[in-house]
Order: sequence, then C-alpha cells, then structure tokens
Amino acid sequence: MCGIVGYIGSKQVAPILLDGLEKLEYRGYDSAGIAVYDGENIKTVKSVGRLKVLSELTHEGSLLPGTLGIGHTRWATHGAPSDINAHPHENAEQTIAVVHNGIIENYSKLKGNLEKKGYHFISDTDTEVIAHLLDYYYKGNPLEAITKVMHRMEGSYALGIIFKEYPDEFYAVRKDSPLITGHTQEGSIIASDVPAVLKYTRDVYFIENEEIVKLTKDSISFYNVDGEEIQKESKKIEWDVNAAEKGGYEHFMLKEMYEQPKAVSDTFSPRIKNGEIVIEELNMSEEDIKKIRKITIVACGSAYHTGVTAKYVFEGMARIPVEVDVASEFRYRNPILEEDTLVIVISQSGETADTLAALREAQKRGAKVLGIVNVVGSSIAREADSVMHTWAGPEIAVATTKAYSAQLIALYLLATKFAGVRGQITGDEQKEILDDIQRLPVQIERLLENKKNIQKFANRYLAADQVFFIGRGIDYGISMEGSLKLKEISYIHSEAYAAGELKHGTISLIEEGTLVVSVSTQKDLYKKMISNMEEVRTRGAFVMAVSVEGNLEVEKAADYVLYIPKTNKYLMNSLAIIPLQLFGYYIAVGKGADVDKPRNLAKSVTVE
Amino acid sequence: MCGIVGYIGSKQVAPILLDGLEKLEYRGYDSAGIAVYDGENIKTVKSVGRLKVLSELTHEGSLLPGTLGIGHTRWATHGAPSDINAHPHENAEQTIAVVHNGIIENYSKLKGNLEKKGYHFISDTDTEVIAHLLDYYYKGNPLEAITKVMHRMEGSYALGIIFKEYPDEFYAVRKDSPLITGHTQEGSIIASDVPAVLKYTRDVYFIENEEIVKLTKDSISFYNVDGEEIQKESKKIEWDVNAAEKGGYEHFMLKEMYEQPKAVSDTFSPRIKNGEIVIEELNMSEEDIKKIRKITIVACGSAYHTGVTAKYVFEGMARIPVEVDVASEFRYRNPILEEDTLVIVISQSGETADTLAALREAQKRGAKVLGIVNVVGSSIAREADSVMHTWAGPEIAVATTKAYSAQLIALYLLATKFAGVRGQITGDEQKEILDDIQRLPVQIERLLENKKNIQKFANRYLAADQVFFIGRGIDYGISMEGSLKLKEISYIHSEAYAAGELKHGTISLIEEGTLVVSVSTQKDLYKKMISNMEEVRTRGAFVMAVSVEGNLEVEKAADYVLYIPKTNKYLMNSLAIIPLQLFGYYIAVGKGADVDKPRNLAKSVTVE
Repeated sequence: MCGIVGYIGSKQVAPILLDGLEKLEYRGYDSAGIAVYDGENIKTVKSVGRLKVLSELTHEGSLLPGTLGIGHTRWATHGAPSDINAHPHENAEQTIAVVHNGIIENYSKLKGNLEKKGYHFISDTDTEVIAHLLDYYYKGNPLEAITKVMHRMEGSYALGIIFKEYPDEFYAVRKDSPLITGHTQEGSIIASDVPAVLKYTRDVYFIENEEIVKLTKDSISFYNVDGEEIQKESKKIEWDVNAAEKGGYEHFMLKEMYEQPKAVSDTFSPRIKNGEIVIEELNMSEEDIKKIRKITIVACGSAYHTGVTAKYVFEGMARIPVEVDVASEFRYRNPILEEDTLVIVISQSGETADTLAALREAQKRGAKVLGIVNVVGSSIAREADSVMHTWAGPEIAVATTKAYSAQLIALYLLATKFAGVRGQITGDEQKEILDDIQRLPVQIERLLENKKNIQKFANRYLAADQVFFIGRGIDYGISMEGSLKLKEISYIHSEAYAAGELKHGTISLIEEGTLVVSVSTQKDLYKKMISNMEEVRTRGAFVMAVSVEGNLEVEKAADYVLYIPKTNKYLMNSLAIIPLQLFGYYIAVGKGADVDKPRNLAKSVTVE
Repeated sequence: MCGIVGYIGSKQVAPILLDGLEKLEYRGYDSAGIAVYDGENIKTVKSVGRLKVLSELTHEGSLLPGTLGIGHTRWATHGAPSDINAHPHENAEQTIAVVHNGIIENYSKLKGNLEKKGYHFISDTDTEVIAHLLDYYYKGNPLEAITKVMHRMEGSYALGIIFKEYPDEFYAVRKDSPLITGHTQEGSIIASDVPAVLKYTRDVYFIENEEIVKLTKDSISFYNVDGEEIQKESKKIEWDVNAAEKGGYEHFMLKEMYEQPKAVSDTFSPRIKNGEIVIEELNMSEEDIKKIRKITIVACGSAYHTGVTAKYVFEGMARIPVEVDVASEFRYRNPILEEDTLVIVISQSGETADTLAALREAQKRGAKVLGIVNVVGSSIAREADSVMHTWAGPEIAVATTKAYSAQLIALYLLATKFAGVRGQITGDEQKEILDDIQRLPVQIERLLENKKNIQKFANRYLAADQVFFIGRGIDYGISMEGSLKLKEISYIHSEAYAAGELKHGTISLIEEGTLVVSVSTQKDLYKKMISNMEEVRTRGAFVMAVSVEGNLEVEKAADYVLYIPKTNKYLMNSLAIIPLQLFGYYIAVGKGADVDKPRNLAKSVTVE
C-alpha cells in the first residue's frame, strides 16, 4: 500500500506526478502529496483526502513549475491520515525530500536516537525518520548517505529521494516494497506499479531488493548496497493501456466483474491443448508431480479464499493432503515443511508483502514454491521456483473479482493435471472436467445478466447492520469470499461460517430479520444445509440461498433463491461467486459507498 | 440440544419431571412440556418460553396427578418455538405421547407418506412424524412398533414414549443423541444427561445406539433393535451433586470462571508424578507416540479454539505437523488420513454430534482416535481408542470457561509428553514447562481478582455494535475464543482476525471509536502487533491490549492495557483468556442479558 512516483525530464513534472498517482491510487488514498524541485527550492504540497484535493490545490499541477519531482498517495500505517502525516517528508532545512512505501519497524528507536542528537519531529510517521537520518548521514554524496541509512533501517521500504544540492538527478531504493523504473525520450520515471508508467514506456526495470537507482533526464543507473554500479535488463510489458480505464462502466469493479468470462477464458485457453493440460512456465516434470506428498497453500485475503476452495479440489480430485495458511501466520509459525511438500503461493500483484515473505521462508526451509500470480515480472513471479500466471489483465478496483476468478481456474487446472498425472482420474474424467471448465465463461456471462434482479434484492438490505454467510465444504470457501466482498465495500459487518459451526455460539446473533446467505452447491450436502437453514429461519432469519438449478427442495427452507447452472462439483465456486459479487456491489452502490476505493483499504498490500 | 426426561415410580411424577428439566435446561430453553399419565388419560401441558412458565402453569407440577410421565425442554430445529411445536407430541387419539431430542432427516418424506394415509399434522416439527408413525405401526405391542419405526427413521433421536394401553411402563430408545437411565427404590428414570438423575442415583446405564429400554416402577430392561433382551452394566458417577448449584454466585458462568484454578489443577495434578507425565487412561506406549507422523485435531466451538492453540504448541514443542478441523467440516470433506496419523477429538460433553461423527469417520478410515472429554462414560469417552479426561466437573453455563481451560491443560500435557518422548525437549526443559503449568492456578486466581477493573471498562462498551479481536500465532487462537465469549452471551457482533489479515479487507469496517482487542503475548511478535495496532488506531479504533507484564512498549500503541503474568510462551493462552472471559461476561451482565442461557443457544450440541 501507498504508491510512489518520481520523474525527471524535459516536461513539467507536477501533472506527470498527479497522473501517475491517479493510476496508483488503488494502493492507498487517505492523503497525497508531491515535492517539486524548480532548481531553486523544493516545494512540497500535500493534503489529507483523495488525490482530487491535491489536484485542485495545485490547479492540476500547473501552479508548480519544475521538471524534477516525487509524489505519494498514502495508506496510513503510522500516524492518522492528516496533512502533516502525508508525504513527502523533509529534513528541517528542506534540502532533502522523501516519499516512502513500507514500514520502518525500528523507527521508534531511531527516532529516540535522532531526538537525542537534536532532531525535531513534526509528524507521527515512521517516514520522517528517514528524512532526518538522510540529513544526518549526508555529507555531499547522496549514494553514500543512502547506503548508510539502508544499514540502519529495519523493515520494508521503497523510497524516492530528492537532494537540493543535486538539481539534475534524484534517487530511488527499495527493500520488500515494489518499485519499477523506466526511461523514455522525455525523461526517467519511477513508480510502485506498472500502470503508472504504461503511458510513457513498456520497457521497465524491476528494481530488486537493496538496489539503488540514480535517475537523470537522460539515464538510469543502478547500484548495489555497497555503492557499486550494476547492470540490469529491462522487461517488456504486454498489457493493454486501455485495460486500466473505466470504459463506460460506473465503476472499475463492475467493469472487472464483466471481464471475468474473458479472464477465465484467457487463463485456461492457452493451457488446454488437445485435451491435455500444458502449463508452459510450470517447470515441473511428471516425476516432480508424482512425488508431491503434501501441498501447503499460502495467501492473503481473497487469494486465501481460493486456497480454501482449492484444498477441497486437490484433496478430492488428486488425493493430495493440503494445508491452507494465511501468509502472515505461516511465516511466523515456525512451519513444519516435510520433504516433498509443494508450497503454492497465490497473489494478484505478486508483491503482497506477507505472501512474498512466506515464499522466502518456505524456500529457506528447502521447499519448492509454485507462484500463482497475475503480474508478470513481479517479485513472486521472479523468486518462485515455478510460476503459473493468471491472465486477468490489470485489476484496478480494490475489491478483487476477475483476478480471483482467474486464480480459481489456475488452481483447477493444476489440480486436474496433478490428478491425471497421479492416476487419480481417468482420461475420460479429465476430459469431462476440461469440458466443464471451458463452459464456465458462457455460464458466468449468463449469471452476470441477472444483475437487475440482484440489484433489486440488494436494495432491500441497504440498512442491514450484519449479514451471515454459511456453507459446507467448498461452499464454505465461497461463503468466505462472498462475505468479504460485501464487508469490504459496503462496511456491513458480515461473517462467513462453516454452516455446522454456527450453532456453537454465533447463532445467538440471529434476530428477527437478520439476513443469512446460504451457499449450497454440493449435492451430498443439500440435506444438511437445509437443516442449518431451518435452524436460523426458526430464529427469525431471512434466508437467501444460492444453489444449483434443479435443487427445488432448497425453496422450502429459503426466502429467496438464486440458482446457478450445473457444472462439475469441484468448479461450483466459479459460478456461485458471481451473484455474491453482484450482491456486495449493489449493496455498496445503493449505500453510496466509494466502491472502487473503500475506506481504510488499499490494493496490493505491500506492508505486513 | 433439547433435553428429555421420564419417570415411573411411587411418587408424583410432574415435580420430578420439572426438577429434571431444570437440570437439563442448558440443553435448550425456547419451550418446554410434559405429558403425565394418571392411569386414565395422558395429559399434556406445554408452553413456549422458559421452563418457569411451565412450572407456573402447573403450580410446580402439583396440578397434575399421576406417577408416570415424560418431559422435554426444547432447542428448536424444525419449526419456530411455539406452544404447538413444543414437545410432547401425540397421535390424534392421544394414546401415544413422545418426547424427542435429535433431528429426523427424512421427516419430510415420511410426513408426505403419512398424509397420504390420512394422518393430519398440527405442528411444524419433525417429531410429530414419530408420534403418527408409532400410531401407524402399533398393533398392541410397543416393542414391535418401536423397532418398526426405528427402521423407517433416518437421523438422530433419543425418545421417551408413553402408550396409553400400558399404564405401568414406558419406553425409551436412542440413536446418536445421548440418553441415560437409572433405577432407585422409588422408581425408574431416564434423562439426556447425568445432572438430572444425580439426586436419585449415582448408578447409571449409558444407553447405546439403537438400544430400547422398557421402564417400570421396579425394573429396567434393555432390548436390541430385533426386540431381543440384552444385559447391560451400570457405571458409578463420582460428581458432587452441589457442583451443579450456583452457590451464591450471580451466574453459573461467574462461578465456573472462579472454578478454573481448581479445574486446571485437578486436570494436571494427578498426571504429574516426580517430574514425569503419567496419563493413566491414555493407553499409548512410547512406541505409539514416537511413530505419530501427523496429528489431526477435530472439534467444535470453544474446543476447536483449544485445537487452534494446540497446533502451535504441538508443532512448536514436539515438531509434529498438526491440522485442525471443524468437526462438521471434517466428516464431510472425505478427509485424507495418512498412516500414523493420530486424530484428537475434543468435547466437554463427549456427546457433541459432529465431533462424535468425526471420531467414527476417522476410525472407519483406520486412524486411531484420542478423545479429550470431561464427561466420564460419554459416547466419545467410550468409543475413542484412548481417552484423556479433563477434570472440570459439571459445567452448566452455556458459554464454556472451566471446561475450556481444562482442555488447554490436557493438550499442554500431551504436547509436553510427546515432545519429551520424541526427544524434542530435554528433561530440564520438560521440568520447566511442568513447573510453569503448576503455577497457572495461582496466576489465574490473581487475574480473576482484577474483575472490578474489567467490569468498569466493560461498562463503557455496552453500546458497541461490533468489536474486533486480533492476534498472531497462539494469540490468534486466544482471540477466537475471546471473541466467541463476547458474542455468544452479549449479542455483540465480534470477530477474530489473524492480525496480519485484517488489512486484506476487514479493516474497512474500522470507524472512529470501534473497539479492537489486541492480544499480544508472544515476544517475537510484539513489534508486528504494534504495527497492526497502529494501523487500526490511525483509523480511529480504540485499542484494548492484553499483553505480558514487562511489555511496556505496547502502551504506546494501545488506549487501555491489561497485563498478564509471565509464563512459558506455549502456556499464555491459559492466562490471557481470563480477562477476555471477564470482559465478555461483564458486557453481557451490563446489557442485562441472560448470561447462563443466551438466546438461540444450547450446551452440548447433539444435533448436526
């Protein structure tokens, strides 16, 4: 979270910074700021609130002359959102300006030391420490000051830094927070993520941990932590520039929901060849697949939910035991990774801090790691032992939809391939599953068409203060994601429960009229789910059921039913999630919430 | 859930039934009823609401003459709580009366068939089907009618049945719902659980699945499903009768919290002998312990939370991989149980339906099952391959406290023993842990003394509509239980989060003033937790921290801190849960909620 951008070149910098920050606003949006160096002074403008405010303050940047600058859009970690806590931060003489994405974990100790030396702090942020530390170590050589500061900081950072004594260059450095850089005829640019630079160049350099970058109008040079120059190669980005525009939809989220048939299809099509599953970048032999004894799936948020579903799919289809773990837990639990355990990490951005750290932890313990990522060239894509890309294209809305759907497909393909190679399913069974996967895009399209009905129903629940989602087995995984979609954008406290567990305490929250969403796509569990629906209904709940066409019995136990078409039992998640996404979306729209940028959140969580 | 009781003897039956139901009220309390046979008519009185209502309706039972009767206190599954849906249920001629605990899963089909035969239904319950089925099959021989009905019913049941043609006997039968019976000089009695019969006898028979009981004033006889008589042996119950009385405390829950030092001590004391851990009933050799390759812990509700903590303890201390599963999920997920997997099931009552079914599922798949149970002679205690009892005594409050604390101790002892046998800890380390375990009762007592402060703080949050609990590692397990304690008795929607996961969506629910309870007992994670506390505090949350004496840094990031004394890092749960239990309790008391009998809930969940 937090997005940073920086530019030096022949054009006025402020509008370029604002435009870049707009593309990065999904990474945080509680305050924003820019520092522009006009050759005489470093001028800093910053403001709490959305980027819009900053834009207005500077007349779209036109008030600020100068061709060198850095910018920042914030997701607060230390210090509440405020003008003062917004970045850039400066030293007292205003000769050094810094923007920062990450968390300095030892900032409190560093701050104490600096205060003893007479430094005065005006903000509550960890970042201000960096500005003063740079001041302390700077003796005329930026590179030297930066490397010294790097040795003192613990935590994660991507920094953009301007030194007043150097009007023709600026610096960037990163550790565990993403940062890319690129060069065009009109200058050099840094940014936290690809969409911010696509307008200028498609050739980008992914900056590695503890690499320092010096940018001038005409060149980019890279240095290691010892200050020695190093050589790097750029990567070509294939994304469509327009993919990151709303294109007539009211929100990115709605647009991205509608892009799901394509994201799903793009993810499986290149991998299904003559009835076989070919994942070119996978880099695993049949032998490798056969000797897997256990799979550990590690991820955060919605990606974690795809893992919960995948546990059922891998265990059911390929009979490989699967453990699913939240990344922030995995990395600190001193995990036991037995021989022949395959670790699968899942992340849209490929930069999720906890997931990346989990990958490294697993590798340190000798496990092979397979990364499922959407962003080519991202940290996870580079560091994993093998990779499977999802082809969802850029996702802008903070609440994920199409990247989530593409992750499910990747996991289905892997599970089916593993099951086939290990002889757990016959060729005919494999063919049947692949046929069903190939039918998903059309089925998803059909489900999206039902949006008007869902909107109508959603409008009845705008005032709900709590909602429960219940399901068993795969349906529990679906419930978790359905619940998260609702809560993150509508601010309604919803919670997902394994349906059989509700009665062990939480059922006491059910009152007259409480909405309970029951997901019931697994035929063997229809009866059990009906019992659970009755339990909440007899206590006054209003039950909305998501079930499969043909399960008429569910209507006896539900007040409102949404049907999904039939498919293989392991693939149900891909269909059942669609009405739940629409439901969450329309509740948020009805409440007038900022759907694409929910409060407090940020996409691509690059702090712990 | 649901409690049933029945009596035939020389005394007036109605007061005995009411007294027995009072002891069983923890099993359900949304309606109650009794049927008394005075030799001429079977008279049924039933009423929605607490047992009190029924008691008043019948002048403490004195209005109903007769010495044979059955009674029921209900936790609704099919059909809302109402006079009509309350038990007993009868056939149209009122010649057969039935009370039922359980769920008849095929009731809807059976009902359809009976309706075609002309039977008329007046309630929405599944139980009424049993009354009419008995009527249909009864041709003068009760035993024959009962066995025929048993062949038709799918699901779970414990039944008490009166036939008008047999004024000197009544019947009982069970499948997958608990039922015990006992005989005294004054008559014969059946009940769902031990406390209801303790006043009359300590020698009880645990009725097994598909066994039928015929009770007369002077005798009890047992039959199998073919109607053949069988012999059974009684078991002696050691519980103190007074343990099930409030003894001056305002609520059972408060009394049971105060019994925790004793429950903890009673559970470890007999097992620690000269620095060694001796668990007599465990029935596992050192060889057995050494060859365990994986542990799967299966439980529900609070017992599941002890499993979440135990995963960290077993993995950290004994380096055995642990999977924890919700029982209702485990049994239906087609679980993969590899060779040398030990399955541990945890249940206070030993009758939890889902947990019992999970035990059977695991055994069917060839795994050895170790049961941790509080009730001697319960189904899980009898069916598990090895058993470790918790010695918490009878627990009456629906929200568990002392049984939970005793379960933790049992798990610590097991983990320490396993770690010792497998050479993962030295003798000295084992001694240190045992010393720390032995200090817990005094430390818990000290924490309980702080109740006034916690009550004062709790009173400020009576109006809260949502609360979040966050923690990492073991502290996540503690958070889950702290959250459940609060929500189940105070009806405040609280939710526990792995602290690092909050920012992946749920943080959007944090508003100005939202209470976040941060549990932080693990030294290596103090810093990470402080970052997470800052994240929510910058968004307006009020942070209450539970941490360990000496962690002064937590005060910078919290608005209110409760300290617990130092102990081994694996044992922290036993201390940190105490202030959270008190917090939940005092919120509920402050809100005027019925602490011991929260709405919609029941203890000992014997339906799925």
